[in-house]
Amino acid sequence: MASVVTATPRWLLGPGPANVDPRVLQALATPVQGHLDPEFVATLDRIRDGLKRLFRTSSDATLAISGTGSAGMETCLVNVIEPGDKVIVGVGGYFGRRICQVAERLGAEVIQVPYEPGTALEPQRFIDEVKRHPEAKVAAIVHAETSTGVLQPLEEIGRALADTETLFMVDCVTSLGGAPVEVEKWHVDLTYSCSQKCIGMVSGLSPVTFSAKAMEVVRRRRRPPASFYLGIDVLLDYWGEGRVYHHTACSTLYYGLKAALDLIFAEGLEARWKRHAEVGQMMQRRVQELGCTLFAREGQRLPMLTAIVAPESVDGAAVRRALLEQYSIEVGAGLGEWKDKLWRVGLMGYNARPVLVDLVCGALGELLRSR
Amino acid sequence: MASVVTATPRWLLGPGPANVDPRVLQALATPVQGHLDPEFVATLDRIRDGLKRLFRTSSDATLAISGTGSAGMETCLVNVIEPGDKVIVGVGGYFGRRICQVAERLGAEVIQVPYEPGTALEPQRFIDEVKRHPEAKVAAIVHAETSTGVLQPLEEIGRALADTETLFMVDCVTSLGGAPVEVEKWHVDLTYSCSQKCIGMVSGLSPVTFSAKAMEVVRRRRRPPASFYLGIDVLLDYWGEGRVYHHTACSTLYYGLKAALDLIFAEGLEARWKRHAEVGQMMQRRVQELGCTLFAREGQRLPMLTAIVAPESVDGAAVRRALLEQYSIEVGAGLGEWKDKLWRVGLMGYNARPVLVDLVCGALGELLRSR
Repeated sequence: MASVVTATPRWLLGPGPANVDPRVLQALATPVQGHLDPEFVATLDRIRDGLKRLFRTSSDATLAISGTGSAGMETCLVNVIEPGDKVIVGVGGYFGRRICQVAERLGAEVIQVPYEPGTALEPQRFIDEVKRHPEAKVAAIVHAETSTGVLQPLEEIGRALADTETLFMVDCVTSLGGAPVEVEKWHVDLTYSCSQKCIGMVSGLSPVTFSAKAMEVVRRRRRPPASFYLGIDVLLDYWGEGRVYHHTACSTLYYGLKAALDLIFAEGLEARWKRHAEVGQMMQRRVQELGCTLFAREGQRLPMLTAIVAPESVDGAAVRRALLEQYSIEVGAGLGEWKDKLWRVGLMGYNARPVLVDLVCGALGELLRSR
Repeated sequence: MASVVTATPRWLLGPGPANVDPRVLQALATPVQGHLDPEFVATLDRIRDGLKRLFRTSSDATLAISGTGSAGMETCLVNVIEPGDKVIVGVGGYFGRRICQVAERLGAEVIQVPYEPGTALEPQRFIDEVKRHPEAKVAAIVHAETSTGVLQPLEEIGRALADTETLFMVDCVTSLGGAPVEVEKWHVDLTYSCSQKCIGMVSGLSPVTFSAKAMEVVRRRRRPPASFYLGIDVLLDYWGEGRVYHHTACSTLYYGLKAALDLIFAEGLEARWKRHAEVGQMMQRRVQELGCTLFAREGQRLPMLTAIVAPESVDGAAVRRALLEQYSIEVGAGLGEWKDKLWRVGLMGYNARPVLVDLVCGALGELLRSR
């Protein structure tokens, strides 16, 4: 007979996925339905309503892509970029660089605005750079830089870009559902997230939203978007009333997302932001009490993801391995050049609870004492 | 509290998704793991081994994309096509046209080889067209045209194209796991499938495989592939020993795929093909006994998907609606111009069982008698 899957249960305290509420797991066991089933497509409508509330937008060009957050990033770029377009990107960590890579593959000319990892980008510097290139199609920045633990202020940038021709794109993969994201108030034109972090679901879906200004750029393209799978034009035909077949959406994942959104609004979005903020502060205090330092500058730290500098005296990779093997706790390594120099601890969605601060700091404290 | 998801259980007898074996559903409830967890990535290795057996290939450029079959189609095209490249496509139904659309969005010059819907393309016609355009980058055809119920012979085409510069691409979304697919023997260079049909999982993953000839074309590109999310170069860095982060793969879906593959090899691949063939023949006999005609020509019919011409005297859409509402049976409508003229009945994976032939033909017989 078929072999049995025997995955070890983990405390998922890295940059995501996080553990999910048992009620979300239960929703994943919903009977499989077809992608054109009247019940299922009615659920897509409810999901769109929920995502609009979550993004704080009234745009109907809001949906969840059948792919991970990386697919969402590419969706935002591929629908507006044509070869040769200029794209300005704030780069102070791994995901800023990822935006550059995706845009370059699409044939864009990328102008990087570098800033120091561990800090936020000074808004006026970014605004000045955009104003120097008024022909730029997109100006992109990461709201929550998951590689460094930094939260980027957005409101001032959005206000300054609102009356330009440039679209304001924001990566809110790690922030959405765990910290304020105000798409309309901040004049964000293109943004994307993921399902497995603060939204509280497994990975595999990517919420995206396009503003009216962004959709106007899509409509004025010389050629259709280079992607069919991620084409917002054909996706909106499926998510719209016509229900034109586009791809075979996985009811398992969308029912899970529906349940996760229901839990978010039952808790209240503001209450959820507050919970993440309080748990994040507790985590950051406790880890400093253990003698560790934090990578992100004070006042610019993410609540849901804490980047901890591994003390020089310990082997960062060995501690992560011990956490996994002895405690079944997953924390993230650093990305790229910080691979074994940082531990990234996420307390997201269902995992943003004081008890898990105790759990991860207790284990970390034990391991540091014994080294 | 959060509202409860209350999806009605369905008999999924359309073009997919199909119902899945309870053991696959159980695997979907495996504890969530991180995309870099040593246990999870070891499972990816097992999945790759399984997919190689399933595709009948020894190529290590074999993996499952985090997206649906449509993402797989785009993966095969985006990695080899550069703007201006010629792509030859056999078009005798919806999915042949879809290949044209995806290739055109990528900037390819598409040369269509039309053939009559309901029939297979005469191999020599396709071969002649490819030989007329020796500079063509890709020659693509659909193995199992899900819109018409036709099975396309491939072996002769593959043999003829093997010593040309052109890559042979095959859509086996509906055939893989349910009918012979011999990637190496038939000299197929690029092929993709889905998880929710004859493989017996929910949708959301797309198995793909690239031959050495295809990978050589990828290596010789002037620029990197236009997509990062679907880029085979960066995907192989994640699926390879380096485990370089690329995207947050959903452990839920991959554990489900692992279980589905285990079930396939426990049954035996040839036994599974035979089961699909026998159940398909039974279905096609029974539906003709009900007075219906089949859309696909005799001898060219798919076993796992039967396209039935709705009798002129009945309202095709009303019958489908009654099947869903009175029997909770989903069958597919026609695609595009055949929307209400065809019923498409799929008996795939776990659903390829005689008892389900009885079930759907019983319900259809009742509904036709009462009209």
